[in-house]
Amino acid sequence: MEPRALLEAWRGRLGRELDAAIGFWARHSHDPEHGGFFSCLGRDGSVYDDVKYVWLQGRQVWVYARLYRTVPRFRRPELLEAARAGGEFLLRCARVGPGSPKAAFALSRDGRPTKVQRSIFSECFCALGLDELGRATGESRYRREARALLEAVVRWVREDPTELGRPPLAGATPHEPLAVPMMLLCLAEQLGDGAGGPLAELEGWCAQRLLRHLQRDGSAVLENVSEDGKELPGCLGRQQNPGHALEAGWFLLRYAQRQGDTALAAQAIEGFMVRPFQAGWDPEHGGLFAFQDVDGLCPTQLEWSMKLWWPHAEAMVAFLMAYAHSREPALLRLFHQVAEYAFERFRDPEHGEWFGYLARDGKVALTIKGGPFKGCFHVPRALHMCEEILVQLLDEPHQCPGAAE
Amino acid sequence: MEPRALLEAWRGRLGRELDAAIGFWARHSHDPEHGGFFSCLGRDGSVYDDVKYVWLQGRQVWVYARLYRTVPRFRRPELLEAARAGGEFLLRCARVGPGSPKAAFALSRDGRPTKVQRSIFSECFCALGLDELGRATGESRYRREARALLEAVVRWVREDPTELGRPPLAGATPHEPLAVPMMLLCLAEQLGDGAGGPLAELEGWCAQRLLRHLQRDGSAVLENVSEDGKELPGCLGRQQNPGHALEAGWFLLRYAQRQGDTALAAQAIEGFMVRPFQAGWDPEHGGLFAFQDVDGLCPTQLEWSMKLWWPHAEAMVAFLMAYAHSREPALLRLFHQVAEYAFERFRDPEHGEWFGYLARDGKVALTIKGGPFKGCFHVPRALHMCEEILVQLLDEPHQCPGAAE
Repeated sequence: MEPRALLEAWRGRLGRELDAAIGFWARHSHDPEHGGFFSCLGRDGSVYDDVKYVWLQGRQVWVYARLYRTVPRFRRPELLEAARAGGEFLLRCARVGPGSPKAAFALSRDGRPTKVQRSIFSECFCALGLDELGRATGESRYRREARALLEAVVRWVREDPTELGRPPLAGATPHEPLAVPMMLLCLAEQLGDGAGGPLAELEGWCAQRLLRHLQRDGSAVLENVSEDGKELPGCLGRQQNPGHALEAGWFLLRYAQRQGDTALAAQAIEGFMVRPFQAGWDPEHGGLFAFQDVDGLCPTQLEWSMKLWWPHAEAMVAFLMAYAHSREPALLRLFHQVAEYAFERFRDPEHGEWFGYLARDGKVALTIKGGPFKGCFHVPRALHMCEEILVQLLDEPHQCPGAAE
Repeated sequence: MEPRALLEAWRGRLGRELDAAIGFWARHSHDPEHGGFFSCLGRDGSVYDDVKYVWLQGRQVWVYARLYRTVPRFRRPELLEAARAGGEFLLRCARVGPGSPKAAFALSRDGRPTKVQRSIFSECFCALGLDELGRATGESRYRREARALLEAVVRWVREDPTELGRPPLAGATPHEPLAVPMMLLCLAEQLGDGAGGPLAELEGWCAQRLLRHLQRDGSAVLENVSEDGKELPGCLGRQQNPGHALEAGWFLLRYAQRQGDTALAAQAIEGFMVRPFQAGWDPEHGGLFAFQDVDGLCPTQLEWSMKLWWPHAEAMVAFLMAYAHSREPALLRLFHQVAEYAFERFRDPEHGEWFGYLARDGKVALTIKGGPFKGCFHVPRALHMCEEILVQLLDEPHQCPGAAE
């Protein structure tokens, strides 16, 4: 297929798929009684559990508000009202105690806490959703809460983790998971206002921290490194997560673009996208592994060889963004490779949205459409971002020079 | 095959397999420098991580000491010395703080705590191993420590869980996991001295609690029930774990035998073994599922359809014990079915011991022989117990009446 025809075909497919995904969540996940969203949805959308996971509340608020704010065909009052009902549910229920910034991990249907994690991510996804809701509604109280949550998270990460409640243990190796600077860079972009804005220092810190995970002469992204940026011994140190590397890659590429830093952009593409993809793609069955060991040993995660939806969604965003940046045809081919796999294997043409979990051989292993970790987020975010990039590429007067090679 | 010939063939196979398994752990898992055992062993036994998991320390001490004490061919000083080195490592390092009964979940190679769980199982497996070590060595200090740990665990379970450190949450449903009364019944048998002994009341309490997990007119063993023994809503309430049901089944059968309670023995066999096995056996590929949903919905555990080694080891013990109890030929056939599957799929004839994790279709998914949850325990315990039962059956003057039908 000619590059322009390929881009046009994908624009159509991705746009229709985004409509189907949002339709699925709008039909099945709203709770008119208490606000907020159900995420435990079976293949056909039926609710199989009414637990409300805070990560997924914040993420769905973000998706709805972002689509409402930036995509004309989604500027529908009912979408904003659903986002607002989710945001209000979070304001009312997410915090574990009135004086504490700590948010629960899971809530009962009516909003009482059922689980609390000793990590930063519940607070991060609340902040992500509430900031976008504030931008979509123009109401500053949402963004004020988002900013307060971000400040707590930054304090826990950069100054004092005491409030997280992890007991200090004499034998534990202090280490930094890739997810932490990655999440903070995403938040800094969301809550900040571009290069030179109030979160510029935080963005720079995150980018530098992310680069410390690029180890072994730039040949591997390691999920955990020491506090001073060195490789760690054991499984913890050897762990790789191709999906995280790819997602961090496009966060870093956007940061490099905002900074006008072409060397960093090239490093993001080669180190965080191309190499992790090549190492993480299953040569036998296709698809990205969930976990790997950098020395080629067997990971201890039972699901290491399963194919999860979100690394594939992130890879689509990463490679299309990288192609739009560099116009390197090989990057467009990688986008096409992963998008074809995802549409063939994860997509459910019958009921909408994607399956989340395939066995190594690509067969559906779990028929659920949502659960404790899968909600309305990676699929619609990736489809929306890819559609946006494709529209820009196709609108250019001399689009895709590299693609003509 | 004639029943007697079948029993004799299995006695030989199981005995040789037990020797191979113990040989594997003796060659690869001992740490001469710090005591204790490595459990992160690759297919060929090479250590891929030196973390020491407390569950697996206690369990390996139990296996070594029990074999030394009860099986003449294992009455070798080096086996007892290895058990003792493991026990001393636990006495020295397992407790998180000097005044606290709380034990760590994981330790660094030299015994400093790296992880602590807010549950009872580290303490339980320490108590299990130390009690058996006390019996094997005749040294009362090991059994005293085991008794102190059991008392702490019973206090946490039956009186006050505060020391476990779980925060009370307004929306959390109080519930009892099957693993809790199951583990306590196992410990009460280990530390007690038979029916009428000092732990008789605890045994009776555990048995009654286990029976509350038999729900839906005795057709299903549910992993979690309410504090007053009722089915719970949502995924938590619908969760089934066929391996746990089978393991609880043989704990309960032994208790019923000690009590001379034939009705309870029949309930243990039918309710906790036969029905969970029939529901949990994969009709397509064979093997027991790791998790199920009692309503036939898709479980949310990513590994739900994987075949794990330990449910198969437990099923072998359960059905052979049930056959020895009732002489029902169908139970011997079930033992044969699961043992054939296990020996064909999990066994590694090249390096010894069993693989732990198969994909749904029975292919090896993780090549490791040990890790955070697999160590020297389920395989040797099952092989040893099955061999012991077979020796008894074959030694009887009029063995296997039922099997002649």
